[in-house]
Amino acid sequence: MTTASYGTRGAFALREALSARRLVRVAGAHDGLSARLAEEAGFDAVWASGLEISAAHGLPDVSLLGLAEYLAAGTSMRRAVTVPVVADCDTGFGGNLNAAHTMMRYEEAGISGICIEDKLFPKRNSFVNSGQKLLETAEFCQKLEAAKGVQMNPDTVLIARTEAFICGMSLQEALDRCHRYVDAGADAVLVHSKQSHSGEILSFMEKWDDRAPVVVVPTTYSDFSEQEARQAGVAMMIYANQGMRAQITAVRQTWATVIAEGSAASLEMRIASVKDVFAISGMDEWLERAGG
Amino acid sequence: MTTASYGTRGAFALREALSARRLVRVAGAHDGLSARLAEEAGFDAVWASGLEISAAHGLPDVSLLGLAEYLAAGTSMRRAVTVPVVADCDTGFGGNLNAAHTMMRYEEAGISGICIEDKLFPKRNSFVNSGQKLLETAEFCQKLEAAKGVQMNPDTVLIARTEAFICGMSLQEALDRCHRYVDAGADAVLVHSKQSHSGEILSFMEKWDDRAPVVVVPTTYSDFSEQEARQAGVAMMIYANQGMRAQITAVRQTWATVIAEGSAASLEMRIASVKDVFAISGMDEWLERAGG
Amino acid sequence: MTTASYGTRGAFALREALSARRLVRVAGAHDGLSARLAEEAGFDAVWASGLEISAAHGLPDVSLLGLAEYLAAGTSMRRAVTVPVVADCDTGFGGNLNAAHTMMRYEEAGISGICIEDKLFPKRNSFVNSGQKLLETAEFCQKLEAAKGVQMNPDTVLIARTEAFICGMSLQEALDRCHRYVDAGADAVLVHSKQSHSGEILSFMEKWDDRAPVVVVPTTYSDFSEQEARQAGVAMMIYANQGMRAQITAVRQTWATVIAEGSAASLEMRIASVKDVFAISGMDEWLERAGG
Amino acid sequence: MTTASYGTRGAFALREALSARRLVRVAGAHDGLSARLAEEAGFDAVWASGLEISAAHGLPDVSLLGLAEYLAAGTSMRRAVTVPVVADCDTGFGGNLNAAHTMMRYEEAGISGICIEDKLFPKRNSFVNSGQKLLETAEFCQKLEAAKGVQMNPDTVLIARTEAFICGMSLQEALDRCHRYVDAGADAVLVHSKQSHSGEILSFMEKWDDRAPVVVVPTTYSDFSEQEARQAGVAMMIYANQGMRAQITAVRQTWATVIAEGSAASLEMRIASVKDVFAISGMDEWLERAGG
Repeated sequence: MTTASYGTRGAFALREALSARRLVRVAGAHDGLSARLAEEAGFDAVWASGLEISAAHGLPDVSLLGLAEYLAAGTSMRRAVTVPVVADCDTGFGGNLNAAHTMMRYEEAGISGICIEDKLFPKRNSFVNSGQKLLETAEFCQKLEAAKGVQMNPDTVLIARTEAFICGMSLQEALDRCHRYVDAGADAVLVHSKQSHSGEILSFMEKWDDRAPVVVVPTTYSDFSEQEARQAGVAMMIYANQGMRAQITAVRQTWATVIAEGSAASLEMRIASVKDVFAISGMDEWLERAGG
Repeated sequence: MTTASYGTRGAFALREALSARRLVRVAGAHDGLSARLAEEAGFDAVWASGLEISAAHGLPDVSLLGLAEYLAAGTSMRRAVTVPVVADCDTGFGGNLNAAHTMMRYEEAGISGICIEDKLFPKRNSFVNSGQKLLETAEFCQKLEAAKGVQMNPDTVLIARTEAFICGMSLQEALDRCHRYVDAGADAVLVHSKQSHSGEILSFMEKWDDRAPVVVVPTTYSDFSEQEARQAGVAMMIYANQGMRAQITAVRQTWATVIAEGSAASLEMRIASVKDVFAISGMDEWLERAGG
Repeated sequence: MTTASYGTRGAFALREALSARRLVRVAGAHDGLSARLAEEAGFDAVWASGLEISAAHGLPDVSLLGLAEYLAAGTSMRRAVTVPVVADCDTGFGGNLNAAHTMMRYEEAGISGICIEDKLFPKRNSFVNSGQKLLETAEFCQKLEAAKGVQMNPDTVLIARTEAFICGMSLQEALDRCHRYVDAGADAVLVHSKQSHSGEILSFMEKWDDRAPVVVVPTTYSDFSEQEARQAGVAMMIYANQGMRAQITAVRQTWATVIAEGSAASLEMRIASVKDVFAISGMDEWLERAGG
Repeated sequence: MTTASYGTRGAFALREALSARRLVRVAGAHDGLSARLAEEAGFDAVWASGLEISAAHGLPDVSLLGLAEYLAAGTSMRRAVTVPVVADCDTGFGGNLNAAHTMMRYEEAGISGICIEDKLFPKRNSFVNSGQKLLETAEFCQKLEAAKGVQMNPDTVLIARTEAFICGMSLQEALDRCHRYVDAGADAVLVHSKQSHSGEILSFMEKWDDRAPVVVVPTTYSDFSEQEARQAGVAMMIYANQGMRAQITAVRQTWATVIAEGSAASLEMRIASVKDVFAISGMDEWLERAGG
């Protein structure tokens, strides 16, 4: 196998898994370490989360970062794992040309799946309650076509994400959009919902004719189980940000302990060791390369 | 206050705190989010940890990353906090000119403290049991002088870190080196130890005449308390990597739960909410800037 | 002087020069070398040109690059010179929040002047004959306000660039927009024209009441002289891309010679020497820092 | 063809051309634009020159930049051309692990040839008259082995560059080193000389048994012609920096003209047009992708 086949292999695996409709389980990450933790746990793929990448930079998820920063993070994740990386590319970082540029750069970086959403650039995170606006369907289709037009690896998966439910649109609008997106070349659709239950998603799945795989992100409807997802015909389930949310809680507790106790002594039994950090960052494999 | 005064203010505060010999408490971080969590907990400064930055990239701490990646991470941290950032700059990323370049770039980025160690480039993490070699004292002094020679903000704190104990050298050698480093312009010295107790550090403090502040990093001797440190005359205590180690443990548990339960439902009560992520990444402050 | 005062000093000098209405002469550049050549020639400031930065990346000037790449180039230029850097920031890289982010990052990088134009994002280079669309005046004013709202150094110069003439609008529209932009906080206005003569610019200057400095970019109307500009009351003249255009011609001739002659021998007398490259990149100053 | 095959194809072409011993002609560059000018002129490959990349950053060629900046420049060049890119990687940016890391990152970026030299890190440009020191032969062989050990594409060309002549060593030492480097896995050797004539190179070629292709860089001995090189059995000739040197001269003349004449009018007939800049940056191909 050559380096050049990184992307090819991952994209092939991702496409196969999606088309088999066995539920592909994906965990969100934002750098090499968090990606590796996701692979280590047994997930089928890693989601390069825009929310997480933004937060890691200390910024909110409102299109402040662009292709450069997202791609650097995505590349760092891809290098760290052997499973495919699926990248949250927001709106494709602008217009049609930006979407094409996104496809070019992400394919080149060995990213297997590229997800572009139908919101206006600059976008806001889907859970922000204001300023959610969609592109016209035809315009978003052009964006998808621009991206597909420069795709070089036939296996790369372009996921069209609709924020129709996020913007309060109807089931019919969500379905219509997804059909049009598949017509325009999307290899899968991601239907996002911010309900506290899986109602919108289930009603979508009931009406969807399965002509393309469906991806869901059960952040607000977290009691939606993989078993239910499989039954409903969902092809991919993304746990988009629980890793970072657990990190925040754990680091807060850790630093609160140190501040309160004036020492790190009591932490030692509860946290990973420095050796664990070495292991997960590949210390031994690297030192073997030193020769001599 | 102007943007230009970021570094000036932080460096002034750091220098004041060090010279007051009240123990400056510092927490390790590797990106904007982890830096903000450190400030939020009440630490006086943030340590831009080479071990953490490397691990975040999925790489071991053996000089694979250079000035560019370390500085990008350090800048991201500095932007995210109001407390001073103290940067772990390994060996200064090469020879004397690299040390000068390090000073120039880090000062420019508003970093308040710059720590350079006396190991040979490329270095290995201090807790790796092989390949630990020191520069000759005179050579390291030249490196410190090269860095001091281009310093522009008089308050920037250059910390000379000795790995004498790490390399099995004597207390006398550690003391001699630190004196020479202060002669060469170092504003503080960091004495590292990998013992499981604070013996080496305490013996150093006993013999040190306090002509420059002493920094310690109680990673292996974690039961060394702040109270003991103060009594011994230590000026700064760095909890270098406990945050990331807590993160690893927490993310592992989180993903194991999801894989085991086939759902994220049971996590919700135990992890930060999406709203918490928004808050820590400044969502509301940013949205207010949108106007309109 | 401290590092922290880079931006402060440059911005002060730029603001002074503009308010004195002595014609500030600015040369376009795209990296450290080209910036240094501009300063060396005697220009008062360097223009971090979006067209040049894009072309240096092998890309057309149609918003494919974002804040990250533009800022990296601008920072490289600022480091290389002592004169102020004025940055072409296209549309501010998106919406209002992106404009604010642009101000924050560019100020922090020590850039003295920040130019934002009133075209829709993603924009196309002004000399492309299709797809030129303007934001509504009120919307662009909000963008300017968002940028001014986060400005920290009072001397930083925000230049509002109108593409009214580029989009075929009337003199009145150009004037109205510029007045509104100054109301919204712009410190100067840039009036762009793609005519082959200075007609539009002169008619603008005649009607403009000089309440803010005017910047012009005589690319297509290259026979517009500095003397004429001074008489008309222009405050800054940007030779935006002639350096790169000369570079293209010269490198083409050079490589054609090598290919034709099968040797570089005949070039030696016509091109800078390796020593010249050393000199312009500061070799001797750097080697002196090596000590030892 | 897929994106993933970028590197594979280029490396295959480069290896074929080298093994055919038809003289591969290579031109130095430092960014996408300069690389494209080299390809346009008809060169067989592009040399990502360390001297040029450093100078473009406004820095001398003394190891101040690392893997990150060199790789970013190299990637920009590779994206801009269809011919292979051969990268000047200095010493491999440090020790054995850094050389391995260099191979990994450059292969991944689609670079076809990787050149590592036997000087000590941090190195100085070969034409600096002081501070030139070589690694022991055995140590450099380990470095080459470390790089070859992680190579994934069998066609990637690792060029071992000896600075033996630069450091005043004998022909025998140069020959011995090159043999050892080929034993250690080098696919080609680069023999550098700073003589004003081709004496050292010709004497090397006479004694070399052609077991591996030889690369030369006739910077100081610029009257060495391609015809002579072919006769001597040289496999690759690199015109390493003439493009940038022509650029410096041309830009100087251009800006001097503007400063002297107070206008750019007289330049127009002598420099490339804005349309030329559009053409070389692919404006039309990109606009076609916009659809709509």
